[in-house]
Amino acid sequence: MRIAVDAMGGDNAPKAIVEGVNLAKKEFPEIEFLLFGKEDAIKSYLEDEKNVTIIHTDEKIDSDDEPVKAIRRKKNSSMVLAANAVKNGEAEAIFSAGNTGALLAAGLFIVGRIKQIERPGLMTTLPVLSQTGQTGFDMLDLGANADNEPEHLHQYAVLGSFYAKNVRNIDKPRVALLNNGTEDSKGSMLTKKTFELLQNEPAINFIGNVEARDILTGVADVVVTDGFTGNAVLKSIEGTALNLMSLMKDTIKNASLKGKIGGLLVKDDLKEMQKVLDYSNAGGAVLFGLKAPVVKTHGSTGPEAVKNTIKQIHTMLQTDVVNKLVAHYQNEVTKEEN
Amino acid sequence: MRIAVDAMGGDNAPKAIVEGVNLAKKEFPEIEFLLFGKEDAIKSYLEDEKNVTIIHTDEKIDSDDEPVKAIRRKKNSSMVLAANAVKNGEAEAIFSAGNTGALLAAGLFIVGRIKQIERPGLMTTLPVLSQTGQTGFDMLDLGANADNEPEHLHQYAVLGSFYAKNVRNIDKPRVALLNNGTEDSKGSMLTKKTFELLQNEPAINFIGNVEARDILTGVADVVVTDGFTGNAVLKSIEGTALNLMSLMKDTIKNASLKGKIGGLLVKDDLKEMQKVLDYSNAGGAVLFGLKAPVVKTHGSTGPEAVKNTIKQIHTMLQTDVVNKLVAHYQNEVTKEEN
Repeated sequence: MRIAVDAMGGDNAPKAIVEGVNLAKKEFPEIEFLLFGKEDAIKSYLEDEKNVTIIHTDEKIDSDDEPVKAIRRKKNSSMVLAANAVKNGEAEAIFSAGNTGALLAAGLFIVGRIKQIERPGLMTTLPVLSQTGQTGFDMLDLGANADNEPEHLHQYAVLGSFYAKNVRNIDKPRVALLNNGTEDSKGSMLTKKTFELLQNEPAINFIGNVEARDILTGVADVVVTDGFTGNAVLKSIEGTALNLMSLMKDTIKNASLKGKIGGLLVKDDLKEMQKVLDYSNAGGAVLFGLKAPVVKTHGSTGPEAVKNTIKQIHTMLQTDVVNKLVAHYQNEVTKEEN
Repeated sequence: MRIAVDAMGGDNAPKAIVEGVNLAKKEFPEIEFLLFGKEDAIKSYLEDEKNVTIIHTDEKIDSDDEPVKAIRRKKNSSMVLAANAVKNGEAEAIFSAGNTGALLAAGLFIVGRIKQIERPGLMTTLPVLSQTGQTGFDMLDLGANADNEPEHLHQYAVLGSFYAKNVRNIDKPRVALLNNGTEDSKGSMLTKKTFELLQNEPAINFIGNVEARDILTGVADVVVTDGFTGNAVLKSIEGTALNLMSLMKDTIKNASLKGKIGGLLVKDDLKEMQKVLDYSNAGGAVLFGLKAPVVKTHGSTGPEAVKNTIKQIHTMLQTDVVNKLVAHYQNEVTKEEN
């Protein structure tokens, strides 16, 4: 199992990335790592070189680079070289914490999409905030595309279901369509047409429409939406959670003496609660629908999140979810031809 | 100043509605109220009948009625009669806490839209969660429409700006477009075309794109989006806030003894914080772009929120914001003709 790692992507690279690889090496001795980036810097953080090959390069893509241009012009950047390694069969998956747009472009233009998948979707596992025992749900597209057609959303439903079943080990994942109401008849032109397609798709367990208000309570295992809406919903959830937590901190800081003491006493418990919100323990965001796993974690993440994302890639490779998808679509084509 | 009140709409009607009217009567003795609904029930909650006319009807629209059908078939429902009172000039605005879809339909089909406004938008003032001194921002469309064209979003920008200026008394409201990135070039086909229209609109102070992550921090006074996305963003914010607050309560409930005592001590301060989240003190949601204010408050709201919404209608009538809008669009037409 060989994973290509863009060691230079993200705010804390290469330190956080290499330290995450150190952790992952202990947990998964069967993984071989190809680390792309500055050799000296990588070596200074690497605990040992067992199962590691360093491919030195001085070039890297920055967070403010224009994605498509960066991929085309920075041919020797750590990200492009890592993507090429996957394309050439030297690695089976790519990990990066760098420029999201550039990674999407590298995924599409270098790794390439599965033939029948028109528009790969960006998917992540978000946390469920209620005490149902369910830990998370998968949502896509989170913004790989700005405009989507019903056929794309149909594919996202199949993709998400495959992921939840294989990687998250959920027997019959409940797939729902994000909509402006729960009734079957609700929706925009896009969601109404998508609803019909999903109702007639035997490969998924479609449970109907869900509203954004309810997704965090675990009403579905997979939530399907277009890239523009998905991006807005993800950012709304993040923004609300972030602002509420900081409002809570400010409230305690500016509280009466009684409240301040209370805040001090309850602090540890509230910190535990914040862990529920941190969805990096489920891994990163996958550009799903490509010929190999292309996985992104937050630019600001530390070693633990890097390790969790490598664990996620490990599961994707172990369960062979990408090839199962390819087989599914190949099968569809064969059925149509007969 | 005459306001038509659907006294039977909402979970706590007519009690909460009439008690809200009692409060509003004290604060605004210049308002005359037309209360539509069951006379006996209304009278049992009404403190006195000064400035109040009760129009009795037994029929009402339920929360699960299909909106357009309900408006067409329940001709004697409190909501339809209230809307007719506005249409016939017996009242200048309508208030309801009932079925949102039905109120939107009553607004469009009975009260009617301003001639030049193609698609009135549902707008509300949302809270700003950071300590900037700014109390809120207006966002539209929140779901009156499932599909919007760039021209509609252009009109929402003008509508929102007029509202923020006149009703919220903001000198040059900062109008922003909700988008999937802040750069000028970002967006879907819809937002890219809208961006151009907004850049060339002299009637507004357009500040560019904003992301959903940042709207709660007060980056803009008016946030413009299509009805599908607006609906999803509003529900994401509500759902995240609601789930986080209940997660916090559960955390304290299940905490160590130390944490439980802390929770008890900080409780009052956290309750104060919850008030910031309660955006009903800014009023309800306006279907803006109609010939008269049509304003909706949450079905579950109590008397205080009803009073706040009546206060909002009072300001809309006092500032004559609807007629100023009509004049603005009339002026546009005149310019085009010359």
